[in-house]
Amino acid sequence: MLALSAQAQDFKTRLINFMEEYIYPNESLYEEQLNQMETRWAIPPIMEELKSKAKEQGLWNLFIPQKEYGPGLTNYEYGHLCAIMGRSLIAPEAFNCGAPDTGNMEVLIKYGTPEQKEKWLAPLLNGEIRSVFSMTEPAVASSDATNIEGSIIRDGDEYVINARKWWSSGAMDPRVGIAIVMGKSDPTAEKHKQQSMILVPFDAPGVEIKRYLPVFGYDHAPHGHAEVHYNNVRVPASNMLLGEGRGFEIAQGRLGPGRIHHCMRAIGAAERALDLLCERANSRVAFGTKLADKDVIREIIAESRIEIEQARLLTLNAAHKMDQEGAKGARKEIAMAKIVAPRASLSVIDKAMQVFGGAGVSEDTPLAAHWANARTLRIVDGPDQVHLRDIGRLELRERQ
Amino acid sequence: MLALSAQAQDFKTRLINFMEEYIYPNESLYEEQLNQMETRWAIPPIMEELKSKAKEQGLWNLFIPQKEYGPGLTNYEYGHLCAIMGRSLIAPEAFNCGAPDTGNMEVLIKYGTPEQKEKWLAPLLNGEIRSVFSMTEPAVASSDATNIEGSIIRDGDEYVINARKWWSSGAMDPRVGIAIVMGKSDPTAEKHKQQSMILVPFDAPGVEIKRYLPVFGYDHAPHGHAEVHYNNVRVPASNMLLGEGRGFEIAQGRLGPGRIHHCMRAIGAAERALDLLCERANSRVAFGTKLADKDVIREIIAESRIEIEQARLLTLNAAHKMDQEGAKGARKEIAMAKIVAPRASLSVIDKAMQVFGGAGVSEDTPLAAHWANARTLRIVDGPDQVHLRDIGRLELRERQ
Amino acid sequence: MLALSAQAQDFKTRLINFMEEYIYPNESLYEEQLNQMETRWAIPPIMEELKSKAKEQGLWNLFIPQKEYGPGLTNYEYGHLCAIMGRSLIAPEAFNCGAPDTGNMEVLIKYGTPEQKEKWLAPLLNGEIRSVFSMTEPAVASSDATNIEGSIIRDGDEYVINARKWWSSGAMDPRVGIAIVMGKSDPTAEKHKQQSMILVPFDAPGVEIKRYLPVFGYDHAPHGHAEVHYNNVRVPASNMLLGEGRGFEIAQGRLGPGRIHHCMRAIGAAERALDLLCERANSRVAFGTKLADKDVIREIIAESRIEIEQARLLTLNAAHKMDQEGAKGARKEIAMAKIVAPRASLSVIDKAMQVFGGAGVSEDTPLAAHWANARTLRIVDGPDQVHLRDIGRLELRERQ
Amino acid sequence: MLALSAQAQDFKTRLINFMEEYIYPNESLYEEQLNQMETRWAIPPIMEELKSKAKEQGLWNLFIPQKEYGPGLTNYEYGHLCAIMGRSLIAPEAFNCGAPDTGNMEVLIKYGTPEQKEKWLAPLLNGEIRSVFSMTEPAVASSDATNIEGSIIRDGDEYVINARKWWSSGAMDPRVGIAIVMGKSDPTAEKHKQQSMILVPFDAPGVEIKRYLPVFGYDHAPHGHAEVHYNNVRVPASNMLLGEGRGFEIAQGRLGPGRIHHCMRAIGAAERALDLLCERANSRVAFGTKLADKDVIREIIAESRIEIEQARLLTLNAAHKMDQEGAKGARKEIAMAKIVAPRASLSVIDKAMQVFGGAGVSEDTPLAAHWANARTLRIVDGPDQVHLRDIGRLELRERQ
Ligand SMILES: Cc1cc2nc3c(=O)[nH]c(=O)nc-3n(C[C@H](O)[C@H](O)[C@H](O)COP(=O)(O)OP(=O)(O)OC[C@H]3O[C@@H](n4cnc5c(N)ncnc54)[C@H](O)[C@@H]3O)c2cc1C
Ligand SMILES: Cc1cc2nc3c(=O)[nH]c(=O)nc-3n(C[C@H](O)[C@H](O)[C@H](O)COP(=O)(O)OP(=O)(O)OC[C@H]3O[C@@H](n4cnc5c(N)ncnc54)[C@H](O)[C@@H]3O)c2cc1C
Ligand SMILES: Cc1cc2nc3c(=O)[nH]c(=O)nc-3n(C[C@H](O)[C@H](O)[C@H](O)COP(=O)(O)OP(=O)(O)OC[C@H]3O[C@@H](n4cnc5c(N)ncnc54)[C@H](O)[C@@H]3O)c2cc1C
Ligand SMILES: Cc1cc2nc3c(=O)[nH]c(=O)nc-3n(C[C@H](O)[C@H](O)[C@H](O)COP(=O)(O)OP(=O)(O)OC[C@H]3O[C@@H](n4cnc5c(N)ncnc54)[C@H](O)[C@@H]3O)c2cc1C
Repeated sequence: MLALSAQAQDFKTRLINFMEEYIYPNESLYEEQLNQMETRWAIPPIMEELKSKAKEQGLWNLFIPQKEYGPGLTNYEYGHLCAIMGRSLIAPEAFNCGAPDTGNMEVLIKYGTPEQKEKWLAPLLNGEIRSVFSMTEPAVASSDATNIEGSIIRDGDEYVINARKWWSSGAMDPRVGIAIVMGKSDPTAEKHKQQSMILVPFDAPGVEIKRYLPVFGYDHAPHGHAEVHYNNVRVPASNMLLGEGRGFEIAQGRLGPGRIHHCMRAIGAAERALDLLCERANSRVAFGTKLADKDVIREIIAESRIEIEQARLLTLNAAHKMDQEGAKGARKEIAMAKIVAPRASLSVIDKAMQVFGGAGVSEDTPLAAHWANARTLRIVDGPDQVHLRDIGRLELRERQ
Repeated sequence: MLALSAQAQDFKTRLINFMEEYIYPNESLYEEQLNQMETRWAIPPIMEELKSKAKEQGLWNLFIPQKEYGPGLTNYEYGHLCAIMGRSLIAPEAFNCGAPDTGNMEVLIKYGTPEQKEKWLAPLLNGEIRSVFSMTEPAVASSDATNIEGSIIRDGDEYVINARKWWSSGAMDPRVGIAIVMGKSDPTAEKHKQQSMILVPFDAPGVEIKRYLPVFGYDHAPHGHAEVHYNNVRVPASNMLLGEGRGFEIAQGRLGPGRIHHCMRAIGAAERALDLLCERANSRVAFGTKLADKDVIREIIAESRIEIEQARLLTLNAAHKMDQEGAKGARKEIAMAKIVAPRASLSVIDKAMQVFGGAGVSEDTPLAAHWANARTLRIVDGPDQVHLRDIGRLELRERQ
Repeated sequence: MLALSAQAQDFKTRLINFMEEYIYPNESLYEEQLNQMETRWAIPPIMEELKSKAKEQGLWNLFIPQKEYGPGLTNYEYGHLCAIMGRSLIAPEAFNCGAPDTGNMEVLIKYGTPEQKEKWLAPLLNGEIRSVFSMTEPAVASSDATNIEGSIIRDGDEYVINARKWWSSGAMDPRVGIAIVMGKSDPTAEKHKQQSMILVPFDAPGVEIKRYLPVFGYDHAPHGHAEVHYNNVRVPASNMLLGEGRGFEIAQGRLGPGRIHHCMRAIGAAERALDLLCERANSRVAFGTKLADKDVIREIIAESRIEIEQARLLTLNAAHKMDQEGAKGARKEIAMAKIVAPRASLSVIDKAMQVFGGAGVSEDTPLAAHWANARTLRIVDGPDQVHLRDIGRLELRERQ
Repeated sequence: MLALSAQAQDFKTRLINFMEEYIYPNESLYEEQLNQMETRWAIPPIMEELKSKAKEQGLWNLFIPQKEYGPGLTNYEYGHLCAIMGRSLIAPEAFNCGAPDTGNMEVLIKYGTPEQKEKWLAPLLNGEIRSVFSMTEPAVASSDATNIEGSIIRDGDEYVINARKWWSSGAMDPRVGIAIVMGKSDPTAEKHKQQSMILVPFDAPGVEIKRYLPVFGYDHAPHGHAEVHYNNVRVPASNMLLGEGRGFEIAQGRLGPGRIHHCMRAIGAAERALDLLCERANSRVAFGTKLADKDVIREIIAESRIEIEQARLLTLNAAHKMDQEGAKGARKEIAMAKIVAPRASLSVIDKAMQVFGGAGVSEDTPLAAHWANARTLRIVDGPDQVHLRDIGRLELRERQ
């Protein structure tokens, strides 16, 4: 509804062109190259080429709201761009806008010391290394972050980290340089002051990758999600982020934009699915007519468009509110978007798969992979149930 | 998302206050007065009082975009106000913003001759008379307007109207002065040129009210929806609107804003329902705790808020697009809103009824009446199936 | 699945015939007669004629499983018959199988003293009087029956009843002879022993009918649901049912069959709706073809059939389990049916209304009235939320 | 509802025991062995051990209704067993009851010549070889089987087969001995007489496996679904099944039981998911309480149970009707089950994944793999849209 600034509009046009020219045509090349590597955990060369091109064109780090580090777009503006990137699973990285790097960079920008920034933020901004965020633990319900049990204990000039983490996204990527690890620095403190976040170089002794975790059969190579054990890992005390006991505070700040990004990418994936659906419907003939000429299929298309539009507006509205009142002020709006966008995306992609028949569940279209991706969004960054509870509580509170 | 103008914001504040001060407190008085009248088809005096007060405060004819006749708000702006009026079933009339008068006034403003305006528009704008729109016929599927069979035949200086109409909303209201009747003036013309619309004074000989039609048991008195037979009704040729064969054109123009109004009122009804739901949840104790303290109820509240927000944004977005590109340019957006807003409204009101238990289906809350009202919106002004088909078709076309 | 006994099959055939011959053709006569009575709370003569005919044909009291009082059908068998009766809102009474009489007769059969039976059961079995069940109170969440606050206090040879009840179904019916009232006889007893049920002649001094409660816009005349105040009503001590403090026990026993009946009637209503839907689809032409020839409408029909079949099988399965293991053993199955059958019925009827367009929400078809009826079933005899909770608990328990 | 025969009940008990004792405990061993093989398309030894054990215990070929070849259970009876096998993805094969072998064996039993039976049925019955069914083609909408374009042309004593097929399930399995291929033997014949089915030894020259097709990210090794090209493959004329032009007839006969099996396995998968869900809910603590103690989770459990029960009854009812009236007589019932069971299974498994959080989408539970499997069922053996259309048509026809 709200008009885009000329700058954002310009980015949008160029991004769409870039997608058409470089991303879509190279999706299958990316897969091919990956399949030809010796290991699944190596980077297909085309990715570095795409990154160079994107950087050249200034389509780089677009997510960063701080003018010092990026184009300084609002969340509302970047939301539009993020939806375009979300159309392809290989796009976000190409623009240096992939999770969890985006969140990690934001944390470093907001809370990093100059030294931390120099060492880790600079290469991340440059796309030279990648990063990991290690919070979740298999042993405890991690959607309730107070459950996190890993320990980060001060020992002289160092901190000693012991934690069994999993779902550390991107941890299989050979380029990972740094991890942000959450754990308890003081189990006796007030509940929300027990946790800290600390920077752990990924080649530090004691960082052990146990295994990768597939998502619906996908290994998500070459990034992958890993179970990572931090065994007596020692890092300098200066690697602490923001200060002991401030892990929650950081987590909080991190989540607002990250959720919007997830949502907008999910919407982009749905848009792509709807495009593909319509294309297929226009070419496939069954029982005497083109699928596109059947009212039943038109209803499927219409419901898809309706779901996308609602999710898009809801998410953009949350982004806009966050721009105006901060992540805290937009808490309810963000939670709603976080519920709706994955639902809509799943529903639309599912419909597209259905219209593709057998082809839809295979790898001949990007649909199944996008679906699996979107399915995880109902779990990560707060499972639906937790957001619903929050929204309900906020509604009741507003009326008191 | 889009900021409201100061003017619109001011109307909004005053409207909210008016609702609190005059409308809600008089809902039951309205019912009581109605129950005490000799007939169901007489006007409770409180309504005329409310109208006077609203007019006094300038909260009058707010729907009119033309500065000459009203405040000149955009559809986007009026949408916000309309949602507020929709919270009470007696509110729209109090502000002279009730259907079908709004649509009829618009038609007269846009297409009326000076004479037609003087005779019919002026008293309508003034709230002195009410009006009827007679298109639908029991004999044919009227969602396909080409089916309409009533006849409007030129005979010298007059037109002779013969038609069996039903669902003429408001036709039971003793104040009705004028009807706009649709029918075929030339059954041999091209399909979309066969129909005309004509002005029929409601006291003209041959206008026969056969019966009223209840909606889920409600008589919607004192307005009511009536089966109206036009038996050889004669009107001067100057009562023709816009010109013979232009009935479709008028219908088209009429529908854009009307649909937005319906949607926004439905959303307002949902907002009211959610308020009531929360209030009840906060006061009712079952199985040991307040309903408001049960996560199951919080999920109901959260889902309600989510449905409302999505419908609201979608409808406002359609209104905004209509402001910018006209009803035709916003055709898809309007169709989407027309699908979503009634659905959301029905779903939220239904949830509220459920949380109220037995009270929810009775007349002790406005919920059941609002629900019945909202249910008709999935049928009037284009049944869901017709809109879905359109949206599907437009999506496919955009990709060609 | 399970074959019907010859006896049940014979009842079924005769019942279907009776419906075709006498019930459907007299539905509108019933309405007409009612509209012509001086008051809405008088009995249209056609009803007594229908009752006579049904009794003559032995289609009477079919719900009673005890051979002494009725045909002795199983719940599974009667379920099939009940679905047929549910197709018309005037049918259950015609066969003396209407609520709340059925439940009240069951209570008297199971727990009544010979004297109570003679006085109240006999005329009920005969269809001479009707009865009321007064449990729910406006002041408290009555889905949690421990909340009930009315008092039934022993005073010498009498009990004194003070209670503000509402939703006493049938209480407006001039033929009502007796009410079963629930209330606390000992507020200090263990939670589930505080309540008693007692027989209150409806003409006893102190029985005050405050008002009737509409359901959506329906008054459900001539039966009606009433707010009834019991003001110091005195009845002989021998009117106590089963014994002081055994109200819960009775309520429990009452609920199993009652819920199955509600469900099967709701399914019958859905079957009727689907019949009407198909009929309409076969005769109505829109946008160039019969509705029945549109795949979109066929999907609506298919989904309706699917919903009905599932609800039917689930309910019959519950009835069968109840036949074998009693209401307690079939608790989970009954709860499931109680959730599903109203949902399915509402959904199917709603679809039928949609396909009827405007006619669907009016009184020109029985659809809207059936829908309003079915909507209350998600609230009465345990709201959905309470049943879901129970089912969840039972599932978890079974696994321990 | 219908009681199981003693024989079927006995099989059921033994099957449940076998699952507990041998299947579940070896699921991960199967995966491990597979991961250690040199290729994904080799058989983990544990499978042959399981097969031996099952055969020993007489839990073998249970699906065969003909007493000559199997235990002679009805479809209703076998349905119960099939649901148990469906709980594990490795179970069906272990009992020689896996698709597409079951369907292929049925075809051979019903339509095979003695020679065909000896050569292909015998080793299949014995579990020595596996088989393939090649109908679907990427180039055409194969849900409309008249579209199939592959050719089966008589040339002297032989048939020459040319066809590009895909989704030939199990085609990657090294043990495959035979394929049933569908194609046109006479493109000029009446539409439903053009197609034939023919037996093609899988080592025949010209049988070319182009690639395997993943389902979501699963390769379904070691069986796999393959794109298979039949390039001028020559087989003796005696390999024709039933006769030229009778391909449709065979397809028809094949589908009834096959759909029921798919449905019952899907229901079994859902039952397993619900078991796992409850287990997890009982052990996981979030936000202060066990998940099992949250009403929100109990509702999830209840809705799951409700969905399973409805799907189970509907499918068993279809099986029973098929037992009594054949696949044709039960056509509507089968179509309904085919719609409902996959839906229910997907919904329940999805809920279970959600309650497992991150673990749910990984391979640490069988949930994600079961979900992907169930998703294909809305496409194979008739996509939902085709079944809905059929049901709608049958409903309309019944009323004429
Ligand atoms: C693909 C993927 C990528 C991920 N990437 C990362 C990463 O990079 N770094 C990282 O640290 N983590 C990551 N995660 C982990 C993710 O953040 C967690 O899975 C998520 O926080 C949920 O935690 P959990 O899995 O322990 O689920 P649990 O906390 O055990 O919750 C399980 C379920 O319980 C239910 N539940 C929980 N609370 C309530 C409640 N109050 N009321 C009702 N129901 C409730 C919900 O249904 C919930 O889904 C990733 C996960 C996935 C799947
Ligand atoms: C409360 C209320 C107030 C009303 N007020 C007015 C008024 O003031 N003036 C007036 O003229 N009319 C009024 N109407 C009438 C209303 O506009 C019509 O009911 C509506 O246009 C539908 O026409 P119909 O009832 O003839 O339904 P039909 O045209 O018979 O359509 C019935 C159903 O058929 C199905 N259908 C139709 N076309 C298709 C398709 N292409 N594909 C698939 N399915 C399809 C849809 O499910 C549709 O709901 C009112 C109606 C109601 C209920
Ligand atoms: C048409 C009709 C006929 C009736 N006939 C009779 C009759 O003849 N005799 C009679 O005695 N009564 C009758 N009733 C009353 C009916 O039994 C009650 O309405 C019903 O028991 C619910 O009680 P309540 O209305 O007090 O709702 P409440 O108990 O206030 O419950 C309201 C809502 O709260 C929610 N809720 C309650 N408990 C929980 C929980 N544990 N977790 C989550 N949510 C919860 C549910 O959404 C529920 O719907 C009738 C009602 C109607 C509508
Ligand atoms: C895991 C898996 C295993 C399989 N195994 C085998 C096997 O062993 N052997 C074999 O031969 N095949 C197999 N198949 C193929 C399967 O049978 C086909 O995918 C299926 O028949 C659909 O055909 P299609 O993919 O060509 O889809 P299409 O025919 O192109 O249909 C695609 C979609 O179009 C829509 N559609 C079609 N008709 C209509 C209509 N009338 N109205 C409205 N919408 C319509 C539906 O949404 C449908 O899903 C398998 C498929 C999968 C996914």
